[in-house]
Amino acid sequence: MLESLKAEAYEANLALPRHGLINLTFGNASAIDRSRGIFAIKPSGVAYADLKPADMVLVDLDGKQVEGALRPSSDTPTHRRLFLAFPEIGGVVHTHSSHATSFAQAGREIPIFGTTHADYFAGNVPVTRKLTPAEIAGGAYEWETGNVIVELFSQLALDPADYPAVLVNRHAPFTWGKTVAKAVEVAVATECIAHMALMSLALSPALAPIEPELLAKHFKRKHGPGAYYGQPGGNC
Amino acid sequence: MLESLKAEAYEANLALPRHGLINLTFGNASAIDRSRGIFAIKPSGVAYADLKPADMVLVDLDGKQVEGALRPSSDTPTHRRLFLAFPEIGGVVHTHSSHATSFAQAGREIPIFGTTHADYFAGNVPVTRKLTPAEIAGGAYEWETGNVIVELFSQLALDPADYPAVLVNRHAPFTWGKTVAKAVEVAVATECIAHMALMSLALSPALAPIEPELLAKHFKRKHGPGAYYGQPGGNC
Amino acid sequence: MLESLKAEAYEANLALPRHGLINLTFGNASAIDRSRGIFAIKPSGVAYADLKPADMVLVDLDGKQVEGALRPSSDTPTHRRLFLAFPEIGGVVHTHSSHATSFAQAGREIPIFGTTHADYFAGNVPVTRKLTPAEIAGGAYEWETGNVIVELFSQLALDPADYPAVLVNRHAPFTWGKTVAKAVEVAVATECIAHMALMSLALSPALAPIEPELLAKHFKRKHGPGAYYGQPGGNC
Amino acid sequence: MLESLKAEAYEANLALPRHGLINLTFGNASAIDRSRGIFAIKPSGVAYADLKPADMVLVDLDGKQVEGALRPSSDTPTHRRLFLAFPEIGGVVHTHSSHATSFAQAGREIPIFGTTHADYFAGNVPVTRKLTPAEIAGGAYEWETGNVIVELFSQLALDPADYPAVLVNRHAPFTWGKTVAKAVEVAVATECIAHMALMSLALSPALAPIEPELLAKHFKRKHGPGAYYGQPGGNC
Repeated sequence: MLESLKAEAYEANLALPRHGLINLTFGNASAIDRSRGIFAIKPSGVAYADLKPADMVLVDLDGKQVEGALRPSSDTPTHRRLFLAFPEIGGVVHTHSSHATSFAQAGREIPIFGTTHADYFAGNVPVTRKLTPAEIAGGAYEWETGNVIVELFSQLALDPADYPAVLVNRHAPFTWGKTVAKAVEVAVATECIAHMALMSLALSPALAPIEPELLAKHFKRKHGPGAYYGQPGGNC
Repeated sequence: MLESLKAEAYEANLALPRHGLINLTFGNASAIDRSRGIFAIKPSGVAYADLKPADMVLVDLDGKQVEGALRPSSDTPTHRRLFLAFPEIGGVVHTHSSHATSFAQAGREIPIFGTTHADYFAGNVPVTRKLTPAEIAGGAYEWETGNVIVELFSQLALDPADYPAVLVNRHAPFTWGKTVAKAVEVAVATECIAHMALMSLALSPALAPIEPELLAKHFKRKHGPGAYYGQPGGNC
Repeated sequence: MLESLKAEAYEANLALPRHGLINLTFGNASAIDRSRGIFAIKPSGVAYADLKPADMVLVDLDGKQVEGALRPSSDTPTHRRLFLAFPEIGGVVHTHSSHATSFAQAGREIPIFGTTHADYFAGNVPVTRKLTPAEIAGGAYEWETGNVIVELFSQLALDPADYPAVLVNRHAPFTWGKTVAKAVEVAVATECIAHMALMSLALSPALAPIEPELLAKHFKRKHGPGAYYGQPGGNC
Repeated sequence: MLESLKAEAYEANLALPRHGLINLTFGNASAIDRSRGIFAIKPSGVAYADLKPADMVLVDLDGKQVEGALRPSSDTPTHRRLFLAFPEIGGVVHTHSSHATSFAQAGREIPIFGTTHADYFAGNVPVTRKLTPAEIAGGAYEWETGNVIVELFSQLALDPADYPAVLVNRHAPFTWGKTVAKAVEVAVATECIAHMALMSLALSPALAPIEPELLAKHFKRKHGPGAYYGQPGGNC
């Protein structure tokens, strides 16, 4: 069932190593069919070169595996938590892309220094608090990983459409979008702006963030009712 | 109309991701026919893999779209401003290449430390002032982006033939040349010298610029009446 | 003889340049048949592009070459020392991958800052002491290189299954695994985490290691009796 | 004439972009026939993609072009100076490879921190003094570039077989070898060790050089009468 959903998830998973975002099996992508409340996700620990569309595992929003011979990604509960909390999103991507992960390991936000960043995000890419020992050991580690993301967005009142990525502290980025293809695009952008932020900080350690007018201009050029970037009806 | 101009612009746009200067749709190239006052530019937000020569949009120097089913790049007014101010140039390239953009985000010139840089530029790659909130919000943001470039070259009395690139503050590089192919070559060189300047600064934070005699020697070896680099009549 | 063992070693050697871990001839991989006490290893100084399965050299655990027209890798005694000391391992990989080697040259462990690292290692990637002048000059340099690794694991009571890589001081990494394919995977992970540790240190020079609960969670998610990452019976 | 010499030079020139050592036309390789005192070198400013073996230009040791429709590389006098001063070498390579050039721009030697470096060099990769304004302006700039290299090796009594590379201050590396293929290999190694030295310095800014015993061991393992790396008669 849901062949086109599995194909969409499959294509997104394959795009991750092609964009240089994935080494080994460090990452996964999922796409959801909102009308049925079912998402397709990569099987756990399968090499990208061996992956086939039929390998995608179908899971419902209660966490029940509804189709697939293979075990789903161990990060499945994190994806599920995000699909439940952010009803507008259609896909989730998780990578350990090198530069973004370096910020996550250091527990630092990716600071917004230029228009490349502002084309995708309405501010810094936020970083979660660390999980507590109880959250780590309590038997629902990956679900709790989703919880600290949701908690952060709630506490800071961030709209996931304006901030389509997060760094999980000590771990790595998660991104999302209206479609899983868009979540892949955000994952590429997240890695790219992390790389540039690292270099801008090397040049100017006390660099201030981009000016708010320029941030707003670039973000709104591509998003919202006044957007004029791209083609009418296009999704970039 | 102007099929060869569109082909030239198309080839230049495709060269950008091939040289690793572009992620996603962060960049564009344009080529002008000076006899007609019309330039060909990439359509906005179209993925490079999907681009065809016929997709190139023709725009005149008054900003009127004269051919093309798609909307031109949102940066079109910046290209137009440069074509108007710098009558000797035949092509403009805009990228968000990582190392050059890191300097732009930090608001710093790319300092001239060696002969690689001096082969292309008569000095540092300059950086514009920041746009004012009024310039950003006034409805002609991309035109104003061109304006701060033109203002900088006027204030510092820089010849665009000697300084074929600029960093727009908080944004990214623009480059140009007698042809758009040459502007692509300068974009490659700009990224390369930014990378090397960043590393030379890591090794020697207070490094002085290249000595003026060596700068002049290398620049003039490739440019101007005494040039002896390349083949007679060649354009590198 | 042992055609499949030679094929396995050959495939692992070819994987090293494909993963970007090797420049020139800086590296080698070996696979052992424990029932016979014979291992297959790359011949010395042969370019990867010219390598054939039949070129693999067979050596026994006494160091005697038992098959092969070519001289084995000059690092053969180091591989042999590790096979003797660590009876559970089936393959050894040696690279000079850039980021990991930068830590080795500096005589520093690769610090464990995040879950990517914890997916493969139960702590920092350790670094050996320097060899003494007598060990270097005594005619068994490569054997002594193996000895300082074995000495370190003994002194720190490290289990080679929990710490499947080491940095030889002033030299470069060695990795191992149940199979040589697994040792290649660990070599990829070692390079990747070294790169990220270097960048995390640039962002936060005094960064503390990952919290012990999170380290244990990620390591045990993939290793040991409670592992639930990957497919049942899978070897990642 | 000298078709095989031209083919050898051609192959070496093509290897430079393939190894990622060259952007645009920043580099060149030459091979000499010592019995005739003639060397083959890349033509000036020709793109690598367009190069053909027949394009190689033949020049004698007096600097006279003896064959070729195209103008030889503008760096030809530097190659000639090295062929005259170092009678044992059979090929010269010049690149602007990024990491090595960053050291050259900073006027710093590449410090020898590990065995990768010691496999190719008997010590730091030296850096020349700067050229004087008179040397730059006197009409024989490229010849003077060769002269400062020769002067340095003479003053420090360095054997070009033990130190097969040099950084020209503010400029970039030159490498050489018994064959031009070997000079290409040294150019790859030079870039690689520059990259690793830069990172080791970031980790340990006051890092001491490799211990002399280990340096000697690795260098002699590959060079000289007691060498045992590679195959008998092999040239790596």
